Amino acid sequence: MTATDATAPDDLDAMMLDIGARARASARALALTPGPRKDEALKAMATAVRTEAEAILTANAEDVADATAGGADKAFLDRLALTPERIEAIAAGLDVVAGLSDPVGSVLAAWTRPNGLMIERVRVPIGVIGVIYESRPGVTADAGALCIKAGNAAILRGGSESLRSATAIHRALVRGLNEAGLPADAIQLVPTRDRAAVGAMLAGLNGAIDVIVPRGGKGLVARVQAEARVPVFAHLEGICHVYVHAGANLDTAKAVVLNAKMRRTGICGAAETLLVDRAVASTHLQPLVAMLLDAGCAVRGDAAVQAADRRVTAAAAADWSTEYLDAIISAKVVDGIEAAIAHIERYGSHHTDAIITEDFTAAERFLGEVDSAIVLVNASTQFADGGEFGFGAEIGIATGKLHARGPVGVEQLTSFKYKVRGNGQTRP
Amino acid sequence: MTATDATAPDDLDAMMLDIGARARASARALALTPGPRKDEALKAMATAVRTEAEAILTANAEDVADATAGGADKAFLDRLALTPERIEAIAAGLDVVAGLSDPVGSVLAAWTRPNGLMIERVRVPIGVIGVIYESRPGVTADAGALCIKAGNAAILRGGSESLRSATAIHRALVRGLNEAGLPADAIQLVPTRDRAAVGAMLAGLNGAIDVIVPRGGKGLVARVQAEARVPVFAHLEGICHVYVHAGANLDTAKAVVLNAKMRRTGICGAAETLLVDRAVASTHLQPLVAMLLDAGCAVRGDAAVQAADRRVTAAAAADWSTEYLDAIISAKVVDGIEAAIAHIERYGSHHTDAIITEDFTAAERFLGEVDSAIVLVNASTQFADGGEFGFGAEIGIATGKLHARGPVGVEQLTSFKYKVRGNGQTRP
Repeated sequence: MTATDATAPDDLDAMMLDIGARARASARALALTPGPRKDEALKAMATAVRTEAEAILTANAEDVADATAGGADKAFLDRLALTPERIEAIAAGLDVVAGLSDPVGSVLAAWTRPNGLMIERVRVPIGVIGVIYESRPGVTADAGALCIKAGNAAILRGGSESLRSATAIHRALVRGLNEAGLPADAIQLVPTRDRAAVGAMLAGLNGAIDVIVPRGGKGLVARVQAEARVPVFAHLEGICHVYVHAGANLDTAKAVVLNAKMRRTGICGAAETLLVDRAVASTHLQPLVAMLLDAGCAVRGDAAVQAADRRVTAAAAADWSTEYLDAIISAKVVDGIEAAIAHIERYGSHHTDAIITEDFTAAERFLGEVDSAIVLVNASTQFADGGEFGFGAEIGIATGKLHARGPVGVEQLTSFKYKVRGNGQTRP
Repeated sequence: MTATDATAPDDLDAMMLDIGARARASARALALTPGPRKDEALKAMATAVRTEAEAILTANAEDVADATAGGADKAFLDRLALTPERIEAIAAGLDVVAGLSDPVGSVLAAWTRPNGLMIERVRVPIGVIGVIYESRPGVTADAGALCIKAGNAAILRGGSESLRSATAIHRALVRGLNEAGLPADAIQLVPTRDRAAVGAMLAGLNGAIDVIVPRGGKGLVARVQAEARVPVFAHLEGICHVYVHAGANLDTAKAVVLNAKMRRTGICGAAETLLVDRAVASTHLQPLVAMLLDAGCAVRGDAAVQAADRRVTAAAAADWSTEYLDAIISAKVVDGIEAAIAHIERYGSHHTDAIITEDFTAAERFLGEVDSAIVLVNASTQFADGGEFGFGAEIGIATGKLHARGPVGVEQLTSFKYKVRGNGQTRP
């Protein structure tokens, strides 16, 4: 099929439903594929990506040229552009996924009932995962690999600007599937720039899609969450807090706050708000604020924070619920842990929040009461990442409370079923 | 608030949003309530149900009188009517839930990263559960109790015909909450017969409802699944199969088939289709079919099954996808395990399916390949029940693949979060 910019609606619907049906059919085969075969395919994909590096770079150069001509900004072009190093990183990522242990078939629980029925809860694939992403072509490989590893078929829909690059990478993935004898339909790339394809996926392709994972900015995620008729694993934003408690060690606070805000400002686990307890404001506030400002971070504070350093500007009401994804932080003095937790519950996004304290009771209270996917004590919010959790790789972070919460790795891309073995039991 | 039949739309919306907001607020308190306090409340509810039995019976008599006057059929009236025995069963059910172990706070996994970060995955409540049910007033207590046990607030919407009964039971539940010092808003009953209240719940009450559990017939579940803008734990139907494999012991097959179909015909785990392998049709088909017919079960079969007993009528195409919930079974001879699995995948509802065989390889293949929430070997499909699984109690059975699958007990009404403890770790 050739990539197109727009398709007649009927043709598009038919094409998308066909993609869904083929994904569903291949998911059944994939669910029963032993782990070593899946790993063989993943390794063959890595090899194919390396072998076809030249073709991928050529396709990417065309995407970049079009995007440049279209006036794309520097950040966009940086996400879009591939280099030999980035292609090697894509291939290496496939090898990493191949090396993870197979989640499918593992027995999550097993027990025997008084009547002798032996019940097992066993991990199985979910089925078909739809992944909707933007300009980074490498997501094609990451997402496809994680879905396959967990025994799922993947339907990938990348950004229209990166379609040639994604198509070239996808060709390498299919080559890997073929070499291992897995169905080529197990990873499909939607071959059109037509945005109606996204709508079709969000409608579920007639029941063919079990879950949608959006990977991209807030605009994409918000659209997916609003329109999807199937479950979504996603977070809309990461408004992460670091709360410097009355019992905080200042050195720990400085190290963690600086890292949480400034290591990388554009990731969802970056801190967006600093809360400093009034009990230590006289000793901790000025050094923390000065450190951030000296590191090039703009600080928007309440009156107390503004008083700590003349470079601080006034925070507006909207600042407390803003995800800057930039070298900007909002900062506030709070009256104790209860006020800190209340602030986080009111303005946070239930993603990742940290407390800095040497006080055991306060630490445990924060861990218990803050209703976020990830809560940390004395550690940077930037650890909110599947790799850092030891999951090997992740397809995203979820802030929903059902099924997947926090980093979404291969285990979170599985479901389970009950296997019950008896010897003629009937129910009285 | 007084029960009403219809409310001005603005008033209804405001009332429902208020219910949602109060549920959300109480959920936060409930999530932090220690298990013994929740159990104290549950036991006080049981006591209150017993104490107020008279008032509940009086309210119920009015509901029954209205329903009778309205021409309700016998089955409906049977579901609606309470007796002293049924009220005692409701109270005993509350005591059972009090006796279950508290799922909240249990550590599902714990590991330490090379950098010293200690990561725990800990069970937490989901938040607010909306339960939409029909005429059985006892669901008010069952559902409310399970939600509370798992640390969730409940918003209950019962059938309009049972509103007086549900209100009387709800009063006893609130008395139990009060006695244990838990927020009365933790279990709210929607106090109107206005059906628009259901629509408001399905829209999620402005984000206040985390998950909806419908309990009732196919019409209710289908509406909920089609309209809900929040996740749903449910099954639409239970088209359960028993496949008598070539390696089946006839006595086992007879015991299991009879029980799976006839123990209770109206439950979702009742078998609706019998598949007999052609390899044993000559020996097993006639005895199985005759047994069912003799037990009062109508059999609708393909040509081979019709040939086995003249009382068998011809199955129409629709029979293979019909959930009878009655003393009727469809029956078919299949060519081997592959054909049996293909039939189940095509016509089944991914609920519960069983194979009868002494052949280990066939049993394991069936367990592996049939993509249903529950797959059994040599045991009745009627074991599809949270109590039979050892969950103590269940709020329903789910056939979705995300979060909850199979019986939905207290554990399935929880989520989890990650608690991460460090000593100043920053991300390189």
